Amino acid sequence: MRNINEDTITQAVLASMDDRCDSRLRTIITSLVQHLHSFVRDIKLTEAEWLKAIQFLTEAGHITDDKRQEFILLSDTLGLSMLVMALNHKKPTHCTEATVFGPFYVEGAPEYENGADIANGARGEPCFVSGQIRGLDGTPVSGARIDVWQSDEDGFYDVQRSSDGSGSAAHQARGRLYSGIDGKFQFRSILAEAYPIPHDGPVGRMLEALGRHPWRPAHLHFMIVAPGYETLITHVFRDGDKYLDSDAVFGVRSTLITDWVEHDPGVAPDGTKMKKPFYTVNYDFVLNPAEVHA
Amino acid sequence: MRNINEDTITQAVLASMDDRCDSRLRTIITSLVQHLHSFVRDIKLTEAEWLKAIQFLTEAGHITDDKRQEFILLSDTLGLSMLVMALNHKKPTHCTEATVFGPFYVEGAPEYENGADIANGARGEPCFVSGQIRGLDGTPVSGARIDVWQSDEDGFYDVQRSSDGSGSAAHQARGRLYSGIDGKFQFRSILAEAYPIPHDGPVGRMLEALGRHPWRPAHLHFMIVAPGYETLITHVFRDGDKYLDSDAVFGVRSTLITDWVEHDPGVAPDGTKMKKPFYTVNYDFVLNPAEVHA
Repeated sequence: MRNINEDTITQAVLASMDDRCDSRLRTIITSLVQHLHSFVRDIKLTEAEWLKAIQFLTEAGHITDDKRQEFILLSDTLGLSMLVMALNHKKPTHCTEATVFGPFYVEGAPEYENGADIANGARGEPCFVSGQIRGLDGTPVSGARIDVWQSDEDGFYDVQRSSDGSGSAAHQARGRLYSGIDGKFQFRSILAEAYPIPHDGPVGRMLEALGRHPWRPAHLHFMIVAPGYETLITHVFRDGDKYLDSDAVFGVRSTLITDWVEHDPGVAPDGTKMKKPFYTVNYDFVLNPAEVHA
Repeated sequence: MRNINEDTITQAVLASMDDRCDSRLRTIITSLVQHLHSFVRDIKLTEAEWLKAIQFLTEAGHITDDKRQEFILLSDTLGLSMLVMALNHKKPTHCTEATVFGPFYVEGAPEYENGADIANGARGEPCFVSGQIRGLDGTPVSGARIDVWQSDEDGFYDVQRSSDGSGSAAHQARGRLYSGIDGKFQFRSILAEAYPIPHDGPVGRMLEALGRHPWRPAHLHFMIVAPGYETLITHVFRDGDKYLDSDAVFGVRSTLITDWVEHDPGVAPDGTKMKKPFYTVNYDFVLNPAEVHA
């Protein structure tokens, strides 16, 4: 352990781990150390660049709080989140595909009855969302817990509003509901819009330096939990959005894109007489049966 | 850019960079993305493990302030700091070897005359330090700027004392002096002791989980700057220390270990009559001539 040089340091770090430590942890750290060291060697990282990396991570930590998660943004924009998701959710064909979770999910959103308006004051064109939850064999899944969250007409989530002082801290355009006996759900909300991920921090500066934009195409987030099925975390994307082919977090899948239909004033799906135009989105979700451990 | 899966995500992230962005940055990010993705694939990182990593980085960011640098501790304990240092400081034989910088250097430490006592109230056995700064050809280097910093008898640096409220915010056992015309320097301080790196945060928990201890063998930090020479950042280690073969940050080099000689009460090198035992350390530094760019 003396006179460690650039050729022996990797082995020295690996040898410092106790053989009795958790074997999964040892596997992870062994691979992490080997890859980080290879990275540093491959590019011959300078001390000034190392210091910039330390400062970048420090800034990312300091801008992160209970409303802002810069490390998730970093993971998302480097494609790590999508990779982890894809590796862990290989599904049979015909199951609804998963995509990234993102940093804007919030615990404790209000529960709503089917048909309710979950906008709760969020601004945007009215949008009526409906669909059915089914298993892979076509069976309707009743009582599935459905969390939904989305951006408003300015491309902001409620948690971004409450932290910039321009809105209330109430849950807006997010909520939880349950599918009915027929597996169906419906709610009223607002039209989700494309938005840039928060880019006033170190991740935003990184994207700018790389000549990348921070935009995500318009989408609704869904998390669907039902006994006997694998939890589904996904989005429904709006067809025609200009950012569908350059999503800053690499989350778009063709099967998740659907028509968000614009309607003239008239009667909405819930019977309301709408004096202004409104949108409807219908999307069915097919859940993957959970693995049964014998 | 749609339907990106675990096989295509890496190329998609690389393709998202603008060709016109800084080429060194592109090189670094390309290598980083490839290695991070390979790491995630190799171990098939689970979503729960990914979330733990996000939480680890968040905690590291939140515990970091102007006195505590958890990301440097992380880099040090994963051997990254030593690797970066080694890659960037390949020196001719006979030059003094470099080692890690560590997180405890502070800007603005007081300047002292040769022979001064830099302890400034820090507690520990008296220790008289001396040496000579020379070039590779043996020429004494006069006017070299020498920064020195070290731990006290309890293994704490002054900045750790000031943040835990148990000491003053004054600079203690650290300072700046200059070599004389003969290249020599001398100062009085206290005996540096072995110490654990700060381990009450996420890095400490990581070390514990890996069965590693957080200790570093006793050492004096030196940073020596002189025109015409490469800046030298190094330590002088105390022979006999029990942690010389298991330094938590992999920084020990045999050539940097020297005798810290214990003396009975009597006359110190600076002529002071010492009523209690004291130590002396003599170590000469050989600087590498700076590269001349024609």
